[in-house]
Amino acid sequence: MSTDGLSRRLAIVALLAGLLLGVGNFEAAAQHDALPSWNDGQSKQAIMDFVARVTHEGGPDFVKPAERIAVFDNDGTLWAEQPLYFQFLFAIDRVKALAPQHPEWKDQEPFASLLKGDLKGALAQGEHAIVEIIATTHSGMSTDEFNGIVGDWLASAKHPTSGKPYTDMVYEPMLELLDYLRANDFKTFIVTGGGIEFVRAFAEQRYGVPPEQVVGSSAKLKFQFRGGTPLLQKLPDVDFVNDGDGKPVGIQMHIGRRPIAAFGNSDGDLAMLQWTCTGAGPHFCLYVHHTDAEREWAYDRTSDIGKLDKGLDAAADGGWTVVDMKNDWRAIYPPQN
Amino acid sequence: MSTDGLSRRLAIVALLAGLLLGVGNFEAAAQHDALPSWNDGQSKQAIMDFVARVTHEGGPDFVKPAERIAVFDNDGTLWAEQPLYFQFLFAIDRVKALAPQHPEWKDQEPFASLLKGDLKGALAQGEHAIVEIIATTHSGMSTDEFNGIVGDWLASAKHPTSGKPYTDMVYEPMLELLDYLRANDFKTFIVTGGGIEFVRAFAEQRYGVPPEQVVGSSAKLKFQFRGGTPLLQKLPDVDFVNDGDGKPVGIQMHIGRRPIAAFGNSDGDLAMLQWTCTGAGPHFCLYVHHTDAEREWAYDRTSDIGKLDKGLDAAADGGWTVVDMKNDWRAIYPPQN
Repeated sequence: MSTDGLSRRLAIVALLAGLLLGVGNFEAAAQHDALPSWNDGQSKQAIMDFVARVTHEGGPDFVKPAERIAVFDNDGTLWAEQPLYFQFLFAIDRVKALAPQHPEWKDQEPFASLLKGDLKGALAQGEHAIVEIIATTHSGMSTDEFNGIVGDWLASAKHPTSGKPYTDMVYEPMLELLDYLRANDFKTFIVTGGGIEFVRAFAEQRYGVPPEQVVGSSAKLKFQFRGGTPLLQKLPDVDFVNDGDGKPVGIQMHIGRRPIAAFGNSDGDLAMLQWTCTGAGPHFCLYVHHTDAEREWAYDRTSDIGKLDKGLDAAADGGWTVVDMKNDWRAIYPPQN
Repeated sequence: MSTDGLSRRLAIVALLAGLLLGVGNFEAAAQHDALPSWNDGQSKQAIMDFVARVTHEGGPDFVKPAERIAVFDNDGTLWAEQPLYFQFLFAIDRVKALAPQHPEWKDQEPFASLLKGDLKGALAQGEHAIVEIIATTHSGMSTDEFNGIVGDWLASAKHPTSGKPYTDMVYEPMLELLDYLRANDFKTFIVTGGGIEFVRAFAEQRYGVPPEQVVGSSAKLKFQFRGGTPLLQKLPDVDFVNDGDGKPVGIQMHIGRRPIAAFGNSDGDLAMLQWTCTGAGPHFCLYVHHTDAEREWAYDRTSDIGKLDKGLDAAADGGWTVVDMKNDWRAIYPPQN
């Protein structure tokens, strides 16, 4: 068939498709609510208005699909983070699991306190204690092995107060938002203070975010051979802390474009939101404000975990969207299967 | 319209499309050569066989599109690298451009030699001299400013022997290969020893590879404010060297999956090819061997730039594909416009 013949047939198909589907699609779009767990109100409206603006071809705020970069914090934004970051609860469970191979930990802080169940005592020893707990439990194995360890833990561990598996404590409205943005040709990235390998272990399955779209804190890796087979060994040395002012740096290193939409919940996300919402062209910044002591937790300016203080002021100054979890979200977690 | 009605109409459209396009498409596929700049032979056949295997749904070697990760070295693999890495030629031009603001360079090595046109003398001062030239010319500005500087240089600078703009010295057969893999739902990444920001400045336009799919060496960045506006300042400190054993590390940090296809041209790519071609499941490794002294350059085991020595042995041991540039490539550079 000639190219001309092919073009003609394509045009006929397009025409027929238009006639057959036109009205039906229009009706479907009008009736479909992409964000059913969001109550009608300012937050939902602001999201939908922004998406409508940047996807309106020919409009003044149109953004090409390749540039529709949306970045999401993880802890407290996509899943819960109380009473402690879940990755730290994983580390504590690992200390307990590894203790039989480390009899010396009985007399060695911060492990001794942890093993006696005195979490408060362990944490009171300061940042170096936390770093040591993380380094010890996140190194000394290959990246593939670590991925397996995290997967096993996520499949069996339960949250201390809700009793749910941790991956059931993702926020249903945010899952809908991720899907909604992707349906509008956004590329969704996670930009987390948590460990990049830890979050990748569940991000694709739970959030639909592939590993190459996860930006996080990292330890150094070493390419080496074990029995003739190459692997990437996780070392106990910090490589990069993707938090606070580190978030725009992590975004540039991994994405290399300025996002046009950013979603966070704490002061650790402030630089990321500032970076996103001072770019040229349209942009959108949103803070999830934890206001629901009954269904989730209520905390902000004075919380040890997920402190949101400067960020609340910046949101007011910048006209950013602040989600009132209690009133804006119809559901918190996904429905039980 | 009911969902049932919509489904029925969709089915009708699919049927009509099939009738109208079926035969035409089949003919087009049979006649279309996706790699016209590749001569028929083992290299071309090996590439096409691999792609056919991993895309054959239901076949034993089928790989899901999300896992079709292909990684490409840049210097010597996607564009030329003689007589010196083009990024280093950029750095030399920058030294000359900045010299009026740095009168002290007249008496300060390695700049004094460079400014006298004594490149050999500058390079003979060793690795610290090279690092200093790169650090000086690649820091002290924001990422956005650097992107503009590289863009201006690429638009005006000419290669010292060919007289071509540098971006005209990309390899036409490799451009076809990138397109061919993407048409088969591969995700193509550049994994370069060169600077991540330098390569991003032209990768999207020249290679169709967006910035988030460029992995490279990097300097440290700092998030800071200038006149109330945030920016990312490029610091003179090395962050990561994405070469040799660093390449699998860079791949894990950025992509988080093991590639199934890797393309390189030097010993600096060996670890990347080893990492790719020892994974479970189907994999493909290819070295571009520079054998064409007439149309490009001929060099391998003893070259200062792009040395390919251990890699040639590993390719023979591993049964990797080795492209003989002179005989396998019908064209080297894209046709002149």
